[in-house]
Amino acid sequence: MQLGMIGLGRMGRNMVQRLLRAGHSCVVSDRSPGPAAELARVGAVAAASLADLVQKLAPPRAVWIMVPVDAVQGVVDELAPLLQRGDCIIDGGNSPFEHAIRRSGELAARGIDFLDAGTSGGVWGLERGYCLMIGGPEAVVRRLEPVFRALAPGRGALAPMAPQAPGSTASEGYLHCGPSGAGHFVKMVHNGIEYGMMAAYAEGFNLFRHANAGAAGSTTPDNAARYRYDLDLPAIAELWRRGSVVSSWLLDLTAAALAADPKLAGFHGRVADSGEGRWTLKAAIDTATPVPVLSAALYSRFDSRGESDFANRLLSAMRQQFGGHKEPGQ
Amino acid sequence: MQLGMIGLGRMGRNMVQRLLRAGHSCVVSDRSPGPAAELARVGAVAAASLADLVQKLAPPRAVWIMVPVDAVQGVVDELAPLLQRGDCIIDGGNSPFEHAIRRSGELAARGIDFLDAGTSGGVWGLERGYCLMIGGPEAVVRRLEPVFRALAPGRGALAPMAPQAPGSTASEGYLHCGPSGAGHFVKMVHNGIEYGMMAAYAEGFNLFRHANAGAAGSTTPDNAARYRYDLDLPAIAELWRRGSVVSSWLLDLTAAALAADPKLAGFHGRVADSGEGRWTLKAAIDTATPVPVLSAALYSRFDSRGESDFANRLLSAMRQQFGGHKEPGQ
Amino acid sequence: MQLGMIGLGRMGRNMVQRLLRAGHSCVVSDRSPGPAAELARVGAVAAASLADLVQKLAPPRAVWIMVPVDAVQGVVDELAPLLQRGDCIIDGGNSPFEHAIRRSGELAARGIDFLDAGTSGGVWGLERGYCLMIGGPEAVVRRLEPVFRALAPGRGALAPMAPQAPGSTASEGYLHCGPSGAGHFVKMVHNGIEYGMMAAYAEGFNLFRHANAGAAGSTTPDNAARYRYDLDLPAIAELWRRGSVVSSWLLDLTAAALAADPKLAGFHGRVADSGEGRWTLKAAIDTATPVPVLSAALYSRFDSRGESDFANRLLSAMRQQFGGHKEPGQ
Amino acid sequence: MQLGMIGLGRMGRNMVQRLLRAGHSCVVSDRSPGPAAELARVGAVAAASLADLVQKLAPPRAVWIMVPVDAVQGVVDELAPLLQRGDCIIDGGNSPFEHAIRRSGELAARGIDFLDAGTSGGVWGLERGYCLMIGGPEAVVRRLEPVFRALAPGRGALAPMAPQAPGSTASEGYLHCGPSGAGHFVKMVHNGIEYGMMAAYAEGFNLFRHANAGAAGSTTPDNAARYRYDLDLPAIAELWRRGSVVSSWLLDLTAAALAADPKLAGFHGRVADSGEGRWTLKAAIDTATPVPVLSAALYSRFDSRGESDFANRLLSAMRQQFGGHKEPGQ
Repeated sequence: MQLGMIGLGRMGRNMVQRLLRAGHSCVVSDRSPGPAAELARVGAVAAASLADLVQKLAPPRAVWIMVPVDAVQGVVDELAPLLQRGDCIIDGGNSPFEHAIRRSGELAARGIDFLDAGTSGGVWGLERGYCLMIGGPEAVVRRLEPVFRALAPGRGALAPMAPQAPGSTASEGYLHCGPSGAGHFVKMVHNGIEYGMMAAYAEGFNLFRHANAGAAGSTTPDNAARYRYDLDLPAIAELWRRGSVVSSWLLDLTAAALAADPKLAGFHGRVADSGEGRWTLKAAIDTATPVPVLSAALYSRFDSRGESDFANRLLSAMRQQFGGHKEPGQ
Repeated sequence: MQLGMIGLGRMGRNMVQRLLRAGHSCVVSDRSPGPAAELARVGAVAAASLADLVQKLAPPRAVWIMVPVDAVQGVVDELAPLLQRGDCIIDGGNSPFEHAIRRSGELAARGIDFLDAGTSGGVWGLERGYCLMIGGPEAVVRRLEPVFRALAPGRGALAPMAPQAPGSTASEGYLHCGPSGAGHFVKMVHNGIEYGMMAAYAEGFNLFRHANAGAAGSTTPDNAARYRYDLDLPAIAELWRRGSVVSSWLLDLTAAALAADPKLAGFHGRVADSGEGRWTLKAAIDTATPVPVLSAALYSRFDSRGESDFANRLLSAMRQQFGGHKEPGQ
Repeated sequence: MQLGMIGLGRMGRNMVQRLLRAGHSCVVSDRSPGPAAELARVGAVAAASLADLVQKLAPPRAVWIMVPVDAVQGVVDELAPLLQRGDCIIDGGNSPFEHAIRRSGELAARGIDFLDAGTSGGVWGLERGYCLMIGGPEAVVRRLEPVFRALAPGRGALAPMAPQAPGSTASEGYLHCGPSGAGHFVKMVHNGIEYGMMAAYAEGFNLFRHANAGAAGSTTPDNAARYRYDLDLPAIAELWRRGSVVSSWLLDLTAAALAADPKLAGFHGRVADSGEGRWTLKAAIDTATPVPVLSAALYSRFDSRGESDFANRLLSAMRQQFGGHKEPGQ
Repeated sequence: MQLGMIGLGRMGRNMVQRLLRAGHSCVVSDRSPGPAAELARVGAVAAASLADLVQKLAPPRAVWIMVPVDAVQGVVDELAPLLQRGDCIIDGGNSPFEHAIRRSGELAARGIDFLDAGTSGGVWGLERGYCLMIGGPEAVVRRLEPVFRALAPGRGALAPMAPQAPGSTASEGYLHCGPSGAGHFVKMVHNGIEYGMMAAYAEGFNLFRHANAGAAGSTTPDNAARYRYDLDLPAIAELWRRGSVVSSWLLDLTAAALAADPKLAGFHGRVADSGEGRWTLKAAIDTATPVPVLSAALYSRFDSRGESDFANRLLSAMRQQFGGHKEPGQ
C-alpha cells in the first residue's frame, strides 16, 4: 500500500527503505531536501512540502510522522488542515502517551484518524525489523496492517513461547495494544525497562573494573587482599552470551562495544536521556507503582551530567560544619 | 575424561547427563542413594560414599562439588583427606569468592588443586549447556578443559560479536577468568546483574498492571483520565522478543510465565534471594562502586518477605505524632 | 487584622485559635456547622456560608482556604464571584505549585489577589506556631504580614545561625519565597525532605529490630554470631536527642512514639502519602535533578500498601522458569 | 576519677578538656608530642609513651583509645601487654562492631576489660557534650559511669519525651546498649541514618537550585514556564528551623553553611565516607533489612568521587551501539 513519511532522520529513512523492499510505495518529506532525494533514487517519491506530500497520496491517506518529540505538534498543526475525512496520521516517534489521547480527540473532530505507534529498533531496524506498539481504534489499525507487517521483524525462526490467540500478531513483532495512547504507553515503559537493564549491566561491569581495588590501595585494609583481579571485560561479555541467565540483545551490544574499545576511552560518560525514562517515572508516581530500579537508572544519567554537583557540595559543607572534615584531596 | 560429581540435585544431575552424552565417564555420589542409582541407569558409576567415589576414580582425580553453599565446607573437609597430591576439587556452586581464595590456599598445602567454577544455566543447562566462569591456576584449568568444553554451550550458530583472541574460549561458553576466586567473583556479579534485570522487567510489567488505575479511582483526580488501559501482558512480552531493545532470555521466560498464568495467581510474591546478590553489594561497598540498581533489586526481595514491616509501622507512628494522621483503612 | 478562614479541620481550627490569641479577628466557615460554632465560643465569628463569610468581612478582605487539595478548586470557584477587586485569597493547604501559578493568573483577571502559603506545623502548630512559606506579589504579602507573624513561631529563644539581612523574616518563621507558586514549591520540597528523613530513621530502627537475627537463625551461618543484640529502641531514640548528629524534631516524635508503644503493635504499617512527595519527584524529573533518596522514601510507602505485589509475583515466576525455584514457604 | 587518653586529635583533645573541666584527671598520649604538652598546660598529665601512660595511671586503670579505625589494633597490641588484670580499655572511635566482639574476647583471656563506646559530637562536643553509645559488661560500664556522665551532654533543659525507667541514663546522653559490640553497632547505624538525613537535605536543596531550570532552557518545553524561581537558600534553611517538621541539628548546620557561602563555591563536592555507612549496609544485607535510602545516600558519595565513571561510559557506548546516539556535547 501507499504511505507518506514525514521526517527522514536515521529512523524514518530506514523505515522507508524497509517498506520499499517489501513492495510498498512511499511519498517522503523532510525539512531538508537531501534525504528525500536520496530515497527517490531507491524508489520513493520525494515531496517538496507537506502540501505536496498530501497531494501525491491517494485518499484515504496514511501519513507517518517520524520527527523529534518537540517537533510533532508543529507537523500535526500544518498537516491536519491539508488532509480529508478518512485520512490517518501515525505518530511513530517517542511522544508522551497523553499527547496521543489529546491529539486523537482533536483530529477525530475533523474526521481524521490518529494512531500512536511506538517503534523500537534503532539503527538495526532496517535489517532486523521494527518492534511496533500501536494504540488507536481497532479498524484503523487493521486498515494499516500491511504497513505494520512490513516494518515488523516477523516471526522468522523464533517460535512463540506459547500458542498464540487466533489473530494475535505479537509473534509477528507488532501489536495493537489498546485505544489511543496505549502504543506510546507501552513503548514508554519499554524504554524505562531498557534504562534499568542498561544500568544493571553498567553497574556490574563497573564493579569488574573495581575488582583490582585492593592492589590500588583503595579498599579498607581488612579486605584489600580479596580485590586483586584484572578481569577481561570483553571476554566476559562474549562469554555470557552463551547459556547464561543474563544473555540479551543489550549484552550483545555491550560485547561489541567492549571488544572495540575495552576501556571505553572514546566516551566521556555524560549520558543523555530522551524523555521516555522520565515519563515512565511520572506514570509510576501517578499510579502509585514502586519503581526504585527504573528511577535509580534515570537518576544515574542525570548524575553523569553533573546535576548532583550542588547536592554534593552541600554534603561536604555539612561534614565540615559538624566534624571539621576537609574534602578528600584538599 | 573421568569426573567425580558430588551432589546430584537438579544441577548436578543434569550436568552428569550432559557429560555422559559427550562421552565422558562420571562417578557420582549424593547424600541420598536415589539420584546416583538413577544416573547409573544411564551410564554413570554410583558411589556409596565419598571414600568409595575417590576409590573409583583414577588419579589424578577431578571431583566436582555441586552442593548448597552451606554444605560445601563439610564436603571439602571430608573429601580432602581421601585425595592425593595432584588431585583436583572443583566447587561449581555459588560460594562466596573469598572462600575459593581461602580453600585454594589450604588445599595447596596438601598438594591438592582447587578451582572455582561459577555455573549458570539452571534447569535449561542440560539442553542449552552451562555458561562457566572459572578461577584458579592456568595449568589446572587447561587439564580439565575437556570437561568444561562438554558442559559449555559451545559456539553453535551464535557468531562472536568480534574476532576473538587466539585461544580464547569465551565464545565457546566457558572462560578462565583469573586466579582463585575469579570464577566465583564473575558469577557473583553475573547474578547481581540478573537481579537488576529481573527487577527492571518486574517494575515495568507492574506498571502495566497499574495502567488502569484511573478507572479504579486510585490516582489523583488531575490524572485519572489518562490511566484507563487494560493491557495484554502475555502479548506484550511475546511482542518484545522481536526486534526490541529489551529482548533477552529473561524476557523469553517472562513471556512463557505470563502465557501460562497471565495474572500470576499461582505465586505469592515472597521472593527468595540466594546469596550472590548480597555478596555483589558487599563487594561493591568494599570497592566503593555505586550500585543503586542492583541494591534496589535486592532490597525489593527482602521487602517482599515482610522485612520492612517495622520500618513501615514507624513511619505510620511518626505521621500520627506530627499530624494526627490515621493509617489508610483505619 | 481581620481574616476569613474556610475549612476548620485540625489545621484550620488551630490556626484560628492562634490568631484569636494574638488579637486578630476571624470569620470562620466549614462544610459542617460544628467547628464554626465551637470557635465562636472562643471569639470567632461563625459564618453560615461563603456568602455570609464574605459579607461579614470588611474589604479589602483576606480569606484563607485550609481544605484538602481536591476541594480547593471548588471553594475558589464559589468564593471568587463573591469577592471584590482588592480582596485576597490565600491557599494555605498542600496544593501543587502549578495550581498557584494558574489560579493567581485567573484571579488577577478579576482584580483578586492570590497567595500560596505552605504551612508546616501539624497538630503542634497551635502551641509551637506554623512555619510559613509564602508565594505571590510582594505588596500583597506585606499587607498580610500581621497574620503571618501571628501564625509563625517567631524568633523565640532560638538565635539565627547567622546575621539576617535587613527585613528578612526567615528567623521569625515565615518567608516570602518568591512569585506565585514559590510558597507551595518550597513547601513541596520541604515535605519531600521530610519523607526522606522519616525513611532514614525508619530504616535505621528497622535494622535495630533485626539486630538479633543471628539468634533467630535468619542470617547466613558465617555471620550469625554477630547479630545477637536485643536493643532498647525507646532508650536509643531518647539518647540520640542529646548531643548526637541525628537529633531532630522527628527524632523527638520517634522517641515519644516508641516510648508509648515500643513494638509499635498499634500500627499496621500501611503508610499513606499525601501528594507533596509525588510532586517533589515530578519537579525533580522535570528539572533533571537526581533525587534517589527522596524517591526511595516514596516508593517504600507505595510498597507498604501492597503496590509491589505483581512485581514480586513476576520475580517468583521468573525464578521458577529458569531455576525451578519454589517460593519460600511453599 | 582518672582516665588515660590515647589519641589527641580533634576528638580526643576536646574530650580530655571536657573531663578536666568536670574535675577528672587525665593522663594523655599521642604519636606526636605537641597535643599532650598543650593539654598539660590545662591540667592533664602528659605521657611520653604508652608504657609511661600506663605507669602514670593507678590500677584498676581505664584507658580510652581515640584513634583512626586503622590504628586501633596497633594501639591495642602495644597497650594490652602493659596492663594488668582488672584494667580496662575503651575504644571510643568508629570501629566495626565485630572488632569489639573479637577484642573483648581476646582481652578477657588476659583479664582485661573492654568497652566499645560510640561517640557522637564532632567539633561541637566540647561545649555540647558527647552522645555515648556503650557496649560491654554491665559491671565495667557502671564502674566507668563518672567518665561517661562527664562526657555526655546531660539532661540540661531538654525534658525526656516520656518518663524514663529507673536507672536509665538515656536522657543524660549516654547509654549502655548491650554486650560487646552493641555500642559500636548503635553508633554505626546512627551514622548510617546521618548519611540518609544529610542526603535528604542535599537532594532537596539541590532541587531548589534547579528551580530556575525553565529560564535556563533545560526542561522540556511543556513545563518550562513552571520553573522560574530564584530561591534564597540560606533564608529557607533558617526559616525551617522554626516550627517545621524538618527542623534538626543538621538543618542548623546547613543554615550556617549556606549563610556563610550561599553558592557553596568553596567546596568541590567530592564527599568522603568514613566507614560506618558502609558497615551499616553490610549489617543490613546480613540481616535481610531493606535500606534503600541509606544505600542511595552512600552510593551518592561514591559517585561524587567519580566512581561511576566507567558505568556511565558503558551506558554511552550502548546508546551508540543501538541508536547511533552521540553523547551530549559531542
